[in-house]
Amino acid sequence: MATVAIAGASGYAGQETLDRVLTHPALELYALGSDSLAGQQADALDPRLGRNGWSRIPRFITNDAAISCGADVVFLCLSHGESAALEPPARGVVVDLSGAHRFADEHVYESWYGFEHPRPLGLGSWSYGLPEVSAPTGRLIANPGCYATAALLALAPIADEIEHDGVVVDAKSGMTGAGRSPKASSHAGVVLENVTPYSVGEHHHAPEIAAHLGFPVTFVPHLLPVRRGLIATCYVRSRGDDLRGLLEDHYASSHVVTVLPEGVVPDLARVQQTDGVEIGIFEDRLTGGFVVICALDNLGKGAAGQAVQNVNLLFGFDETAGLRLSGVLV
Amino acid sequence: MATVAIAGASGYAGQETLDRVLTHPALELYALGSDSLAGQQADALDPRLGRNGWSRIPRFITNDAAISCGADVVFLCLSHGESAALEPPARGVVVDLSGAHRFADEHVYESWYGFEHPRPLGLGSWSYGLPEVSAPTGRLIANPGCYATAALLALAPIADEIEHDGVVVDAKSGMTGAGRSPKASSHAGVVLENVTPYSVGEHHHAPEIAAHLGFPVTFVPHLLPVRRGLIATCYVRSRGDDLRGLLEDHYASSHVVTVLPEGVVPDLARVQQTDGVEIGIFEDRLTGGFVVICALDNLGKGAAGQAVQNVNLLFGFDETAGLRLSGVLV
Amino acid sequence: MATVAIAGASGYAGQETLDRVLTHPALELYALGSDSLAGQQADALDPRLGRNGWSRIPRFITNDAAISCGADVVFLCLSHGESAALEPPARGVVVDLSGAHRFADEHVYESWYGFEHPRPLGLGSWSYGLPEVSAPTGRLIANPGCYATAALLALAPIADEIEHDGVVVDAKSGMTGAGRSPKASSHAGVVLENVTPYSVGEHHHAPEIAAHLGFPVTFVPHLLPVRRGLIATCYVRSRGDDLRGLLEDHYASSHVVTVLPEGVVPDLARVQQTDGVEIGIFEDRLTGGFVVICALDNLGKGAAGQAVQNVNLLFGFDETAGLRLSGVLV
Amino acid sequence: MATVAIAGASGYAGQETLDRVLTHPALELYALGSDSLAGQQADALDPRLGRNGWSRIPRFITNDAAISCGADVVFLCLSHGESAALEPPARGVVVDLSGAHRFADEHVYESWYGFEHPRPLGLGSWSYGLPEVSAPTGRLIANPGCYATAALLALAPIADEIEHDGVVVDAKSGMTGAGRSPKASSHAGVVLENVTPYSVGEHHHAPEIAAHLGFPVTFVPHLLPVRRGLIATCYVRSRGDDLRGLLEDHYASSHVVTVLPEGVVPDLARVQQTDGVEIGIFEDRLTGGFVVICALDNLGKGAAGQAVQNVNLLFGFDETAGLRLSGVLV
Repeated sequence: MATVAIAGASGYAGQETLDRVLTHPALELYALGSDSLAGQQADALDPRLGRNGWSRIPRFITNDAAISCGADVVFLCLSHGESAALEPPARGVVVDLSGAHRFADEHVYESWYGFEHPRPLGLGSWSYGLPEVSAPTGRLIANPGCYATAALLALAPIADEIEHDGVVVDAKSGMTGAGRSPKASSHAGVVLENVTPYSVGEHHHAPEIAAHLGFPVTFVPHLLPVRRGLIATCYVRSRGDDLRGLLEDHYASSHVVTVLPEGVVPDLARVQQTDGVEIGIFEDRLTGGFVVICALDNLGKGAAGQAVQNVNLLFGFDETAGLRLSGVLV
Repeated sequence: MATVAIAGASGYAGQETLDRVLTHPALELYALGSDSLAGQQADALDPRLGRNGWSRIPRFITNDAAISCGADVVFLCLSHGESAALEPPARGVVVDLSGAHRFADEHVYESWYGFEHPRPLGLGSWSYGLPEVSAPTGRLIANPGCYATAALLALAPIADEIEHDGVVVDAKSGMTGAGRSPKASSHAGVVLENVTPYSVGEHHHAPEIAAHLGFPVTFVPHLLPVRRGLIATCYVRSRGDDLRGLLEDHYASSHVVTVLPEGVVPDLARVQQTDGVEIGIFEDRLTGGFVVICALDNLGKGAAGQAVQNVNLLFGFDETAGLRLSGVLV
Repeated sequence: MATVAIAGASGYAGQETLDRVLTHPALELYALGSDSLAGQQADALDPRLGRNGWSRIPRFITNDAAISCGADVVFLCLSHGESAALEPPARGVVVDLSGAHRFADEHVYESWYGFEHPRPLGLGSWSYGLPEVSAPTGRLIANPGCYATAALLALAPIADEIEHDGVVVDAKSGMTGAGRSPKASSHAGVVLENVTPYSVGEHHHAPEIAAHLGFPVTFVPHLLPVRRGLIATCYVRSRGDDLRGLLEDHYASSHVVTVLPEGVVPDLARVQQTDGVEIGIFEDRLTGGFVVICALDNLGKGAAGQAVQNVNLLFGFDETAGLRLSGVLV
Repeated sequence: MATVAIAGASGYAGQETLDRVLTHPALELYALGSDSLAGQQADALDPRLGRNGWSRIPRFITNDAAISCGADVVFLCLSHGESAALEPPARGVVVDLSGAHRFADEHVYESWYGFEHPRPLGLGSWSYGLPEVSAPTGRLIANPGCYATAALLALAPIADEIEHDGVVVDAKSGMTGAGRSPKASSHAGVVLENVTPYSVGEHHHAPEIAAHLGFPVTFVPHLLPVRRGLIATCYVRSRGDDLRGLLEDHYASSHVVTVLPEGVVPDLARVQQTDGVEIGIFEDRLTGGFVVICALDNLGKGAAGQAVQNVNLLFGFDETAGLRLSGVLV
């Protein structure tokens, strides 16, 4: 058993992390951090947390108190800026779900995140934890971004066999991807009957994809009138090898990622509310190019599910303990 | 004044064409064709057609009767196969909103539409009517597909200044694009909380785009949980010239297509229920590639609006007569 | 011709009012007020306002400046509190789209709106402008609430022939009904895949309905994952007369409200983006009660359309000038 | 352990029943019936069924074969008519998720379902299985309708303390409630940006509610642009007792139904994809009436979850075995 603290537990990623921790056989919730809810009972966040089965859930404390409570695992579910400014606890595993520690190169923050990194010297101590592509190591884990996860799961296994020039990743995400704080762009009156490309040509997941793929791609995210879930449609040109075979081999033993049979299209609804991933690959008749499509839940494999998966690997637990992977809901 | 017959008036494209004709100052509705509603009053389609202001609307007749009624303009809003099999009326303007006459090369039908064209000799008599790119001529007009319209409006003006290799068109459409007949894939229980790539690598709008652009592109359409409207996100690499300038010049005098100022993203909601088009162009920081985004309503500029615009041009009416272009609805 | 000023033009109701004014044959836009956009061009609100056809649109000025600019008509599209605090201009027609002047009794504000009315003495000078039920008179017009409009259009014509005890109005509205300011409850991540009853048993449209119906009803509003439009399902018990006949007679000559034929259900989509209203009435087989259903657009007949309709009546213009009433969009 | 056969496994209710059975600790899947998929592997229904963990899932057989295969439990997930015509197997527990055996009185079928019941003599052998209201008995169980479940959970515990005259149940359901077969009314082009009252005054769940409540209510269902989930807003007048207290007492020990604290509104999203139920009760300020709101998932507690719950009770398993009840997904 390992004890857990969650900082930022009242945001979307925090609440989803809490969801996995509560049913995890080897993790014990120890501290629940939220500056806005500090002092309140857990059910101030969600009435489900007040029910009998969960009477053991602690009250909210401040994020600082949660981070420094001495838990074996600390999940940081804070904004990029808050996370970047933190002195990580001296012991225990820390998983940062923000982007604050995904780059060894501090200049990326100024250039793509809009702030100078306040603790650049520490950046080298963090490992990027995308288990199927880049296994977590050490005790400080940078949990990947949701879009980057989808793009890398689709492209990393075939990176050596595609043209590096002209790769396109066109991604579409549900609205929980925009975070819980209300903004003009997340108002349902804007989102419904719409699909919105945003940060076109300048989204900070672009350098994240490039850093782990080894070459830059053109990445454009779009917001959908969908609650949760994400699909990345990736366009590549093959150098000749069997791209489908490479993907099938890479994920043959994965319990998280499935490469679908020929002709079957990944379905956002089938991965929604889960930590699973579906990948499909198709050849374009007209150009001979390939389309690799990856569907996952932005809050599952794109955030909380991957964070718990990273912890499972570091502690030697079953890789999928606590994850939501089963079921055939319609 | 010109008289109008609409065949297939009870489908989505037919009803929208009817909408524009009813408010057109120079078109007079003469015949309303629908095999399923033949013999019934117009309000069998929609109760709004039974109101007083529209008491002049004729009863439904069969599609054959509508087509051969001698109207000055016949809009064919039928399936590809039905339209392909028709002997066009001997006089008058005919606008075919299906894909049955968009290609001079009959082999495209066998290869991409799944049927051998029953009247291949006539294909050469039709002109492709995309006013901003390929002006309608003669009296037989093939009205472009919705996706092809968006892709061509975005790419045709810059075709000479981009690399022809590796162009990607990732399009997202509302559900009316799938036609009015219920199918498993249009069931709201499948569509909601989903975004569905379909006909990946083999959609018949791909050769349509290629035919009028002069080179093939990789095209993938997606269905959205949106009622109507379409966005095409196009990825190109410049050969060096000022792509934004080319687009702005091309559409400078258009009342239908607007090139948005730098930094403003096309908005599906602003063009929804209209016949207008918004185009934006953006440079990708990481790769130096360009992203051209085009938003239009699949039933407006993507179907009925364009059909009426083509007729306006052929008859010398005001180009935008009858079109829905005004308003600032939220 | 009459000149128009709009205060609060950057909110949903303000922008929709602007939409109607811009196409109104007898209204001329004179001043556009918005405290947040004061000093900026009109297209700061919406890029469509920067197009050539609308080059005559004035820059934004402050709301105070707009209200006191001397226009013949002032539309107040402000919050309840802002509107209540205003000294109305000394001349000209004023239409208040907020709830600040809908009640002669000042105590309603303390009890239902959560504030003490700052100018209670003026309340008696305002008339409630719901043309089909309570024609506007004088020069100070309180424009009805969207829910109250639907409930009153459904119930007022039959009020004398139904039991006053036990009337239920269960209403469902699109998200633009919640206003443009982002709130936790309007975040698409909350709204999608949801339907939310709110202000249950205590919504301030309840006393508005009661005041104009003559007796209290139980009113519960729900928010839908819909952009715009509203449906009110009203449950009544007849005292014996022909309720359908009463409704049909009442609206026989209306160009705004349609009573649908027996068996036809009002359709939100058919009235969406319009200023029209559909009403249907049904008998309940099991109890003999009646269900009266009213569909309208919360921003159309529920706000801007009705505001302009009130002005048309006061100035003797065509009652439907500037309104959106035509079309058979799918 | 008990063996299970599912007839109609390829419909929505059938697939959801399969979902619960697959994770149930004491049920073993024995036969999977579907006339349209007979002979095919399980993954013909859903690719998730082809993954390794589920290699034990049998091929599809015909419904008749599934029903007569001798399983300890047979779930009938067929249409009303198909189910009514069946001779139930001679042994084992049968749970009918259709409406074919919910009424002892055969005349209800002719009057409300539109067909004469083909096996009226058997109707008396079935018990109505709504555990919290009417415990299942015997071996033939009629599983309640989704709307009736919501209405009865909200109203049955307070039925003796409310006026029986004038009770209104206004229900709103997601689109999976309409079944998987595509229909004009389930086309996303109709459903999106809409809310549709249907079968107004004549829905067959009305007599089902009446039969188990003891008096008739006015019931109107509406379809929402929501994938799954249902909310029933019930309007009652108290005879004086403490309605909230009655509800809280009735569900005090339930692990399925939660009565929310004062002021907290049931949330469809919190019960979506689960077998849980949320109930809230509110007093109407203006009339003194009460509003009881019940949220559940139409495919969970409204269908498959309740079916499995009934089986758990009959076999003496843990009441919630196999049910989806945990989690705090956002």
